[in-house]
Amino acid sequence: MATNGSEKCGWSASQLRKYSFQTKPISRMSHKDPEADRLIANGQPVLLTDTKLVSTALHWDLEYLVGNLGDGQFSVYESKDQKFMYFDEKKAKEMKSFEHPTRRIEMKFKDFVEKIKNHKPGDKKIYLQQTLNDDVGKRIVIDFLGFNWTWVTEQQKKNGWGQLTSNLLLIGQEGNVTPVHYDEQENFFAQVQGYKRILLFPPDHFEMLYPYPVHHPHDRQSQVDFDNPDLEKFPRFKEVEPIEAVVGPGEVLYIPMYWWHHVESLQNGGQTTSINFWYKSAPTGKIEYPLKPQQKVAMMRNIEKMITEALNNHEEVGPFMKAMVLGRYS
Amino acid sequence: MATNGSEKCGWSASQLRKYSFQTKPISRMSHKDPEADRLIANGQPVLLTDTKLVSTALHWDLEYLVGNLGDGQFSVYESKDQKFMYFDEKKAKEMKSFEHPTRRIEMKFKDFVEKIKNHKPGDKKIYLQQTLNDDVGKRIVIDFLGFNWTWVTEQQKKNGWGQLTSNLLLIGQEGNVTPVHYDEQENFFAQVQGYKRILLFPPDHFEMLYPYPVHHPHDRQSQVDFDNPDLEKFPRFKEVEPIEAVVGPGEVLYIPMYWWHHVESLQNGGQTTSINFWYKSAPTGKIEYPLKPQQKVAMMRNIEKMITEALNNHEEVGPFMKAMVLGRYS
Ligand SMILES: [Zn+2]
Ligand SMILES: [Zn+2]
Repeated sequence: MATNGSEKCGWSASQLRKYSFQTKPISRMSHKDPEADRLIANGQPVLLTDTKLVSTALHWDLEYLVGNLGDGQFSVYESKDQKFMYFDEKKAKEMKSFEHPTRRIEMKFKDFVEKIKNHKPGDKKIYLQQTLNDDVGKRIVIDFLGFNWTWVTEQQKKNGWGQLTSNLLLIGQEGNVTPVHYDEQENFFAQVQGYKRILLFPPDHFEMLYPYPVHHPHDRQSQVDFDNPDLEKFPRFKEVEPIEAVVGPGEVLYIPMYWWHHVESLQNGGQTTSINFWYKSAPTGKIEYPLKPQQKVAMMRNIEKMITEALNNHEEVGPFMKAMVLGRYS
Repeated sequence: MATNGSEKCGWSASQLRKYSFQTKPISRMSHKDPEADRLIANGQPVLLTDTKLVSTALHWDLEYLVGNLGDGQFSVYESKDQKFMYFDEKKAKEMKSFEHPTRRIEMKFKDFVEKIKNHKPGDKKIYLQQTLNDDVGKRIVIDFLGFNWTWVTEQQKKNGWGQLTSNLLLIGQEGNVTPVHYDEQENFFAQVQGYKRILLFPPDHFEMLYPYPVHHPHDRQSQVDFDNPDLEKFPRFKEVEPIEAVVGPGEVLYIPMYWWHHVESLQNGGQTTSINFWYKSAPTGKIEYPLKPQQKVAMMRNIEKMITEALNNHEEVGPFMKAMVLGRYS
């Protein structure tokens, strides 16, 4: 477990969940450090302490948000336990017998806050995950315009990224866990209130984290349950080498595309508020060999999609892939 | 073991090698039987007793061939044991550390016959495999023109096959074995002299016969050694369900594209002479689901080629394919 940062207080080791693997710390530095730009340019994670990216949102407590987020509908996920594993709703509809691990409920923001306030032990856990849009009140708009767009847009330009696709507002209850997965976009993860612990695994951990098939609703999520890893089914999980950090208010973590991340709101730490800045990746330049792990992941995704489409039947994909590999490449 | 045909004499059960699996007989009938046309049209093997396809070659004994095949060079393969496993010479050059199971020697036909005549137990075994070409003598040309081109060309037309790509002349010593493999063309296999036993396995046996990787010199050949199958590495081999026949002079076996075949010249049966008629397959029509096993084999070949090309390094193909499948689809 990394102790990097904990001396700054705000949280203690006892608030972190226990897992079977060792970790190393994520590099933490000023955004003015030239090393920070170098890391981002190389697609390496870095924790930036002082970007002021969301400094105008640091006062966004629940009371302020109830008063200013507006009357619109917000997506709130409900889970019987602390885990909120993402699933693709379209793929879930196509798959008979898929069990929904969470339920999405649309509600007004004030009703979400009511639910949090009245939460009792044993109740279902909830997690708000809503893209920021035009429905928000005037003061939120002003706060939003005060984000450090200069710095973040400069990063976008310098690294050749595509457009900003969305800002996702996340408000989670203490102890909530987003199980390990990867995204297909670049992400600046900005912490607003409370503390989140983030574990990161490089893209070459694909073979140790066993993602669900691409056509599965849990595409991009690992099949491995960190609380109870099945080492018979997933033997290479014991080889994982994650890095980690606890991210506090005002800090920003760069989560490069295809990097696996597990996120937990610290236990007994109160609710947490975060904002994602998701950017489309840079266009793939000229191919150089050997291919990078990221490029191989993209290739695997395309091959799986191609096979799934060509066979026209999800149930034939597994036997087909096995026939191609077992006893031949294994 | 099939007894179908053995009552016609010319060979006995003791001349057949012993393997670990049971077999059923290949359908044997007149080419005039409407069922024969139906089987060929459906891509099913059939043994035809009376096509007269190579009736003008039935007198091609070694003496006649020495006198009339001409002075050209013939490809003769030499093997330390009875097995002649095919390998792709181009792929073999690209692969460091590939051990050549046979050696190709170019020689005049009369020197091949000398070798056969002087063969002593313990000598290397030999197998002539040479495409018939224009260098042959006049009498062979006349015999060749007397083949039943009417029937075979009608089959080509009716089934929409492409061009005749070659006629391969095969002259093997008794006991020679061509280990199980599949070809990417349609084949009328015509027996001229001596007896060959042919085992056939349908295209869906891909997962039970574990072909070498596509980039391997032994592409299209099974990795399984019929004399000593490694059931740890190839567990599904025990599920094979072959059909078999002994093919004698004047008989023709239709070996459909992608059907696996093992061919053995009967033990103590003297040398064997055969001629292959290889045709390009019919163009793939409209895709219908579920895909046929043949179509899946073609797809797997293309995917393997694509991956091999994209990674630009043979050694990365195995780990890449394993990462895609192990613990995810297995
Ligand atoms: Zn994510
Ligand atoms: Zn063949």
